[in-house]
Amino acid sequence: MAELVGNVLVGQSGGPTAVINASLAGIIAEALNHEQIEEIYGTLNGVLGILQEDLIDLASESQQQIRALKHSPGAALGTCRYKLKKQADFERVLEVFKAHNIRYFFYIGGNDSQDTADKISKLAQQQGYELRVIGVPKTIDNDLPSTDHTPGYGSVIKYISGVVREVAADNEAMGQGDLVSIIEVMGRSAGWIAAGAALAKRKDHPHDPPHLIYLPEIPFDQAKCLEDVKRILKREKFCQIVVAEGLVDSDGNYVAADAATDAFGHAQLGGAGDALAEIIGSNIPGVKCRVAKPGLIQRSAATAASKTDVEEAFMAGEAAVEAAIDGQTDKMVTLLRGDKETYTCETGLAPLSDVANSIKKLPREWINEDGTSMNFQFLRYAQPLIQGEVTVPHDNGVPVFAKLDKSRVDKVLPAYEV
Amino acid sequence: MAELVGNVLVGQSGGPTAVINASLAGIIAEALNHEQIEEIYGTLNGVLGILQEDLIDLASESQQQIRALKHSPGAALGTCRYKLKKQADFERVLEVFKAHNIRYFFYIGGNDSQDTADKISKLAQQQGYELRVIGVPKTIDNDLPSTDHTPGYGSVIKYISGVVREVAADNEAMGQGDLVSIIEVMGRSAGWIAAGAALAKRKDHPHDPPHLIYLPEIPFDQAKCLEDVKRILKREKFCQIVVAEGLVDSDGNYVAADAATDAFGHAQLGGAGDALAEIIGSNIPGVKCRVAKPGLIQRSAATAASKTDVEEAFMAGEAAVEAAIDGQTDKMVTLLRGDKETYTCETGLAPLSDVANSIKKLPREWINEDGTSMNFQFLRYAQPLIQGEVTVPHDNGVPVFAKLDKSRVDKVLPAYEV
Repeated sequence: MAELVGNVLVGQSGGPTAVINASLAGIIAEALNHEQIEEIYGTLNGVLGILQEDLIDLASESQQQIRALKHSPGAALGTCRYKLKKQADFERVLEVFKAHNIRYFFYIGGNDSQDTADKISKLAQQQGYELRVIGVPKTIDNDLPSTDHTPGYGSVIKYISGVVREVAADNEAMGQGDLVSIIEVMGRSAGWIAAGAALAKRKDHPHDPPHLIYLPEIPFDQAKCLEDVKRILKREKFCQIVVAEGLVDSDGNYVAADAATDAFGHAQLGGAGDALAEIIGSNIPGVKCRVAKPGLIQRSAATAASKTDVEEAFMAGEAAVEAAIDGQTDKMVTLLRGDKETYTCETGLAPLSDVANSIKKLPREWINEDGTSMNFQFLRYAQPLIQGEVTVPHDNGVPVFAKLDKSRVDKVLPAYEV
Repeated sequence: MAELVGNVLVGQSGGPTAVINASLAGIIAEALNHEQIEEIYGTLNGVLGILQEDLIDLASESQQQIRALKHSPGAALGTCRYKLKKQADFERVLEVFKAHNIRYFFYIGGNDSQDTADKISKLAQQQGYELRVIGVPKTIDNDLPSTDHTPGYGSVIKYISGVVREVAADNEAMGQGDLVSIIEVMGRSAGWIAAGAALAKRKDHPHDPPHLIYLPEIPFDQAKCLEDVKRILKREKFCQIVVAEGLVDSDGNYVAADAATDAFGHAQLGGAGDALAEIIGSNIPGVKCRVAKPGLIQRSAATAASKTDVEEAFMAGEAAVEAAIDGQTDKMVTLLRGDKETYTCETGLAPLSDVANSIKKLPREWINEDGTSMNFQFLRYAQPLIQGEVTVPHDNGVPVFAKLDKSRVDKVLPAYEV
């Protein structure tokens, strides 16, 4: 295989995770090891930055800042939800790549981003422009196919299960058989995140909180919910519920949206957690409902990140560069779980086209028959992903995160209208 | 002074904090040092447990569990919001104290709890029953008079300011001058907690997030809010707002409640954060609002506790026992700040009657003239309280907290109807 000499471009896309910057750090660290890579550029705000030629020189960042990326939330390069649509957009991307001799393109993102990467790769092939494109998986939603799990997922469920334990201690102190404590978590179309709350239960303590987990996969049954809550409040001092924001009823309507439209069709405030509180509070006399909605806190909780997740995210970044140097293209890095008793994880590769626009659902057989708790198959799957804690440096009592210099690469092309 | 020989009773009351159990640990540790203390009992659920004679033997708990209290959220003894009202209730308390030879009573709580302790103490004096009563301050709200600050406050503002930094990183990655990120924090009548978010700003970076802090002390001005948000969105990629749940308008109505009643008088869902999102979203075209509401997570965030706060809470517990042994009674332990440049803190004592039913407000002169940011006086006050991080043991990736055995003390009195 002929050695491909040229520059690297890295981008980040979609919603941040606690470890998307660890993948960026892995790419930079590994890219520095290869002499055929001349410059390491980053694009600001994903494909938007490519279209607008907003590129930065990552090799000129201090090593200190690159190291800090491993524990920094957000997405250091900026991200976007912009979708390349027009053919002209794709042509522009190639034009920018050629102008800056980009020969290696690494895109850290979810389904949509891998789809974009796939299309860029195919256009380059059509035009005979030698380019190696490798995707790096990223999403707290854990819904990418071809990979055992996605970087970002372990950290979000470590955060959620830790929070469940902390809040349960508070609930236990306050509850007198009359307290319903609801935590609304992310997950619009799949319950992977809500399911992770089950990790808060001690082994062989099925009655530990969370007492009920409501998943988008299981249509919400109000009558059963009220019975379950009453039964739990008789047994325990409190009832702790974790609900996914995308909970739907048997007609497929969001429980949140349903409860949140009044008789006159006005959209009202509040999500699935508030809707549950309303349903329970107005149907069970004397009960007190408390709702917490961590929102963006859950996906930016770098201080509560899983060490395993951080390391795998970094490794996925390194593996992307190694694969490209080896001549691979049009692939996404995957995480492969070993088949031994003890958890191991190594990287593999899957065709981008297999990943793009396809979704991995939470298997129904990992959910107990009651529809509100997870069985040992899920626990065996998820437990290894939350192992290990990280230490984030603090300054004056507050965590300190990477701040890149973002030294701009000179633009050489005329401006482009997005 | 004659040595008073007898038993200790400890109770916890009101809403938990991240460090209320550290005060309990301090009391137990110090009580073990004094031979005139024979037994160390805890009451389950505060005064409720006294009325019902639900007492546990704290000396029989393992040292491991007592040590674990220092990093455990919730209130290990259980707490209550029950207020002793009838004279019969107070008589019953004394009856239980006499039956179990309780000579030292330590009550960890806020204003109401100190009031209760005060009344119990006075009744004992009237009856000529020798009893020493010392209160230990506790509240995330930081609104107790006579003390520089309250145990629990440092941890909640360390948590909030850390979360502000984490979420700001996510916002910066996603924002294109169109993102308003709102975090609703506790604080119904005072803005101490929301004010603490200002600690997230780096020194000499007044434009750092949070960009706007809405306090219950400053009547909400919708027109100014909309102007401020627009101005900030022009300057920054996003506008981050921290709002106290108790935000009120110029008529003293809750902003949440106001926005949450529709034209037909139906109560709608959502708090101050959702109300702000509604106001901003419907008045500034093209803006996206994201609301996070940590709710109970903020006061149970033991993993994010301030080391300074944990140590002071423990010290306050120890000091309560020392004071009682020294013959003091009817006092609350206070925290006194040294007057040197470097922060120091020692304990003092204040009469319970000074503390009970009085509230310490956030000084107006610590809030900037704009009403939405804090000045150096607040920062100088609050900064030392969040210094130092704690390490919470984890098992299988999830934090592990104290679980007391709660070995019951035999009841000797007839049952009492609460």
